[in-house]
Amino acid sequence: MIGETMIEKLRGVRDFYPENQYGRRVIYETLYNTLKRFGFKEVCTPSIESLEMITKKSGAGIVDEIYAFKDKGGRDICLIPELTPSIARMVVQRQKELRKPIKWCSFSRHWRYERPQKGRQREFYQFNADILGVRSSRSDFEIIAAGIECMLFLGLSNFKFHISNRKILESFFDSHGIPVKEAFTIVDKRSKVSEEEFKEMIRTLGAGEECYLQLTSLLDISGTVSECIPQISDALKDTNTHVKEALDNLKEMGAFIDHYGFSKHCMIDLSIVRGLAYYTDMVFEVFDKKKSMRSLFGGGRYDDLIELFDGQKTPAVGFAIGIPMLELLMKEEGKWPEPDFGPDYFIIMLGNVEKEAFALIKKLRESSTVEYALTGKNMKNQMNEANSIGAKNAIIIGERDLENKTVTVKDMKTGTQESVQLNKFYE
Amino acid sequence: MIGETMIEKLRGVRDFYPENQYGRRVIYETLYNTLKRFGFKEVCTPSIESLEMITKKSGAGIVDEIYAFKDKGGRDICLIPELTPSIARMVVQRQKELRKPIKWCSFSRHWRYERPQKGRQREFYQFNADILGVRSSRSDFEIIAAGIECMLFLGLSNFKFHISNRKILESFFDSHGIPVKEAFTIVDKRSKVSEEEFKEMIRTLGAGEECYLQLTSLLDISGTVSECIPQISDALKDTNTHVKEALDNLKEMGAFIDHYGFSKHCMIDLSIVRGLAYYTDMVFEVFDKKKSMRSLFGGGRYDDLIELFDGQKTPAVGFAIGIPMLELLMKEEGKWPEPDFGPDYFIIMLGNVEKEAFALIKKLRESSTVEYALTGKNMKNQMNEANSIGAKNAIIIGERDLENKTVTVKDMKTGTQESVQLNKFYE
Repeated sequence: MIGETMIEKLRGVRDFYPENQYGRRVIYETLYNTLKRFGFKEVCTPSIESLEMITKKSGAGIVDEIYAFKDKGGRDICLIPELTPSIARMVVQRQKELRKPIKWCSFSRHWRYERPQKGRQREFYQFNADILGVRSSRSDFEIIAAGIECMLFLGLSNFKFHISNRKILESFFDSHGIPVKEAFTIVDKRSKVSEEEFKEMIRTLGAGEECYLQLTSLLDISGTVSECIPQISDALKDTNTHVKEALDNLKEMGAFIDHYGFSKHCMIDLSIVRGLAYYTDMVFEVFDKKKSMRSLFGGGRYDDLIELFDGQKTPAVGFAIGIPMLELLMKEEGKWPEPDFGPDYFIIMLGNVEKEAFALIKKLRESSTVEYALTGKNMKNQMNEANSIGAKNAIIIGERDLENKTVTVKDMKTGTQESVQLNKFYE
Repeated sequence: MIGETMIEKLRGVRDFYPENQYGRRVIYETLYNTLKRFGFKEVCTPSIESLEMITKKSGAGIVDEIYAFKDKGGRDICLIPELTPSIARMVVQRQKELRKPIKWCSFSRHWRYERPQKGRQREFYQFNADILGVRSSRSDFEIIAAGIECMLFLGLSNFKFHISNRKILESFFDSHGIPVKEAFTIVDKRSKVSEEEFKEMIRTLGAGEECYLQLTSLLDISGTVSECIPQISDALKDTNTHVKEALDNLKEMGAFIDHYGFSKHCMIDLSIVRGLAYYTDMVFEVFDKKKSMRSLFGGGRYDDLIELFDGQKTPAVGFAIGIPMLELLMKEEGKWPEPDFGPDYFIIMLGNVEKEAFALIKKLRESSTVEYALTGKNMKNQMNEANSIGAKNAIIIGERDLENKTVTVKDMKTGTQESVQLNKFYE
């Protein structure tokens, strides 16, 4: 059918018909209400921004991957590919007035000009949460805890937060004279290559056998955050690293996670570096426990971004969750909410009863969903419509009944009918 | 401050900080819940569409007024300036499967490249509601009633729905051999010019004195929909018009409006033609009763659009409300909701109490908003923070109290404090 219509939607965008939009609304409200309990407030940013703002954070290379164009005034603008630059701009604009910590969340739409594939559309939706203006293990923990609660409140359980602090590997590679950026790229690839290949790649950066062994013993550490701290210290004891602050950070977070009862949802994973992105300290990535550790979403601390945007030094930590990913996950776990669009009441009018019927419809709509046939129909057709749209009850208003000031209420599920005094609805 | 930052937002777009976003959320939820009670279901459309789709409805001239550009694949695309074309496309795509009537609503973002002015931004937000697949006075009425309920549930009262059916003036001008399009343009301008000028303009289209008098007597008819029907018939009795269907439509709607108790919110106004737009029959425009009849929003029946989009003939009726207009109106009427961002509880930790504190925070967050100092602070600083963010209660957790398994709860408004057993929160 779609192929026959002349006008089609663009490639890589989605239409959300009511059946699908309903679940997205549930996701949205769940995330929003969860974050609200943590003290986050919602903000909303423009969809278009100056191109300069996006390249400032991500480099000029990003232009090829986004919707960038000139507006009619000749300005280079773009559809935003992510939220963080806009959040940074909003913070810088009001840095004097905004009380710290700033806790913001936002449901936003983004665009990337990529080859569309499953779960990767050109137009996509995200939920962001950020705490700005404070550098502390408590704020790192709040972001982790908020992320976990989002998953739990959506009914999801097959996930694990893999937590690290980039400063540990950074210092480790530094102490071995190995270029950090390149090493991070290789660490990022470890799960995708064989151990032999990994060893070879690390070696080409100048790592000897000892360094390789120390690195793998670090990367292989696994367990709750608290129980892994001694192992990390131990693995680093013969190296010349300066990781006290990072270890303290993980240790404190580990304690909070334990106190909060979230140990089972978290583990140490020093291989998490989150690419070469703008993260500075704590980083995390959430994995699907079921599906061979597919990465779901992530976040971390980014203390330099606001300064990059010419603002005062403002530490920050946050996460971004892709809504399509949540949709996929909820469908897999059988948690995707199916809408029940059937109205509470379907009003069936027989004869000259519109006066009483419309008054009743208005009254019932104060708290219920009420529909009625929008074209004149006989009893049978009206009842059929009530049935086909899944109405819970039909209220039959007939001339004869009205003489006795009654109507007939039919429970559409059981089929039972009862005569009800009209004024009962107005009490 | 803004002038000093290097990165600025584009002209004509708005940032919504929490204080403002809160009211928008209230608007959104109110409109959505109102429409839901009428049986409308939410849909969501892409923000980018093929340019052809937009020009198909509005003509090639619109290209100068919108964000149109080539994507990297060389396609002519645009940021949607309105929702209706996308809705039409979605209906055509599934015209076989969709059960009629289709009742959809949507909260959407739009873009127009215009000179920004008060209440007119380049990026703006709308709420749309449409009933598709049925042509009847009942569906026209449902759209009017839903529009009125939206205003009422937002707490607004200074508005009036001006209702007409374009077929009446259409037939009137036809019967006088006057070109309808041109005449509509002039009728649209009547309130902005003097009566002499109006008369002159109409005369240039070929209207004689009699025609002018008949026209003004039609345009001057004012009163509830029901009471005006005889006046309209009367004003047309010496003309050769064919308006029975249109009059029946208004008469039926008038009766429904009366039954529903909405007469005070509606009036006949045959000068409402809604420009040269795609409307075919019933049209309405909402005016502000206070501010010298400023137009707020409008809607009407558009029975030809789906066919224009190569779909099966699908009658339709709907409205679009601009969110900035609602914001303005609510602020004027003192109905703009001010957020209360203060958390229910602010947890104050004194000494080594994190274990119990974090457990309590988690417990309380099951149903309350809970915050705490994200950096280590002394008692005074923590209490100051609780105060400055407007916390309703502070819970002070001290080492000594914990020995007795109690905490101190302070009502931040009254200042009263009481000792509470810790396990009381877990009951």
